[in-house]
Amino acid sequence: MVRKGNERSIDRFERRHGGEGYIITRKLINTNDELNGKGRLFSHITIAPHSGIGFHMHEGETEIYYVMSGKGEYNDNGTTVPIEAGDVTFTPSGAGHAIHNPNDEPLDLIALIIYG
Amino acid sequence: MVRKGNERSIDRFERRHGGEGYIITRKLINTNDELNGKGRLFSHITIAPHSGIGFHMHEGETEIYYVMSGKGEYNDNGTTVPIEAGDVTFTPSGAGHAIHNPNDEPLDLIALIIYG
Repeated sequence: MVRKGNERSIDRFERRHGGEGYIITRKLINTNDELNGKGRLFSHITIAPHSGIGFHMHEGETEIYYVMSGKGEYNDNGTTVPIEAGDVTFTPSGAGHAIHNPNDEPLDLIALIIYG
Repeated sequence: MVRKGNERSIDRFERRHGGEGYIITRKLINTNDELNGKGRLFSHITIAPHSGIGFHMHEGETEIYYVMSGKGEYNDNGTTVPIEAGDVTFTPSGAGHAIHNPNDEPLDLIALIIYG
């Protein structure tokens, strides 16, 4: 099955998890069944310039980010590190993270949440 | 944990599953444990110009492609359809697929394989 990009809903969230500015999310799955019940999120996220996702925890699941383009500052369970295109982040159950884009260009990433 | 892009192995495969030309894969996970044992592949794949991945089946797993950039021809379990940046493809257990890039520009996609 092929789902065209122009059939996809695009959502805009302001101050996500208390972060600055806004993000745009494109859900790559319509239901968790499309991950065979093994996860709950597979999305292309754009973090607008001077925007971010505030710090939040994950419990009972792992979130992975893959940075497609742009640069940003990543809070890795309390430690801030620079990230850029090509980097992968892992947030296992019991850990937290945040991400901020301080630049004038968008920061695009793939986000995947798998249970466990 | 952050894994930098320049710490990642890059593999080149010729005539993958009998397809033309070559593809480049960047594994976003090092072991299946990084998907909590719920899948076996999460990769950024570049299909070189005039190259492809030949038809192959998936059993006991679902593969999802997200086209990041470029255009191509996708064989969706026997039916060929055009695909382009933004499109998502699903190949559930018992189905097969192939992908070909007939153009002079690369075709880049994210591939995810989840069991079930």
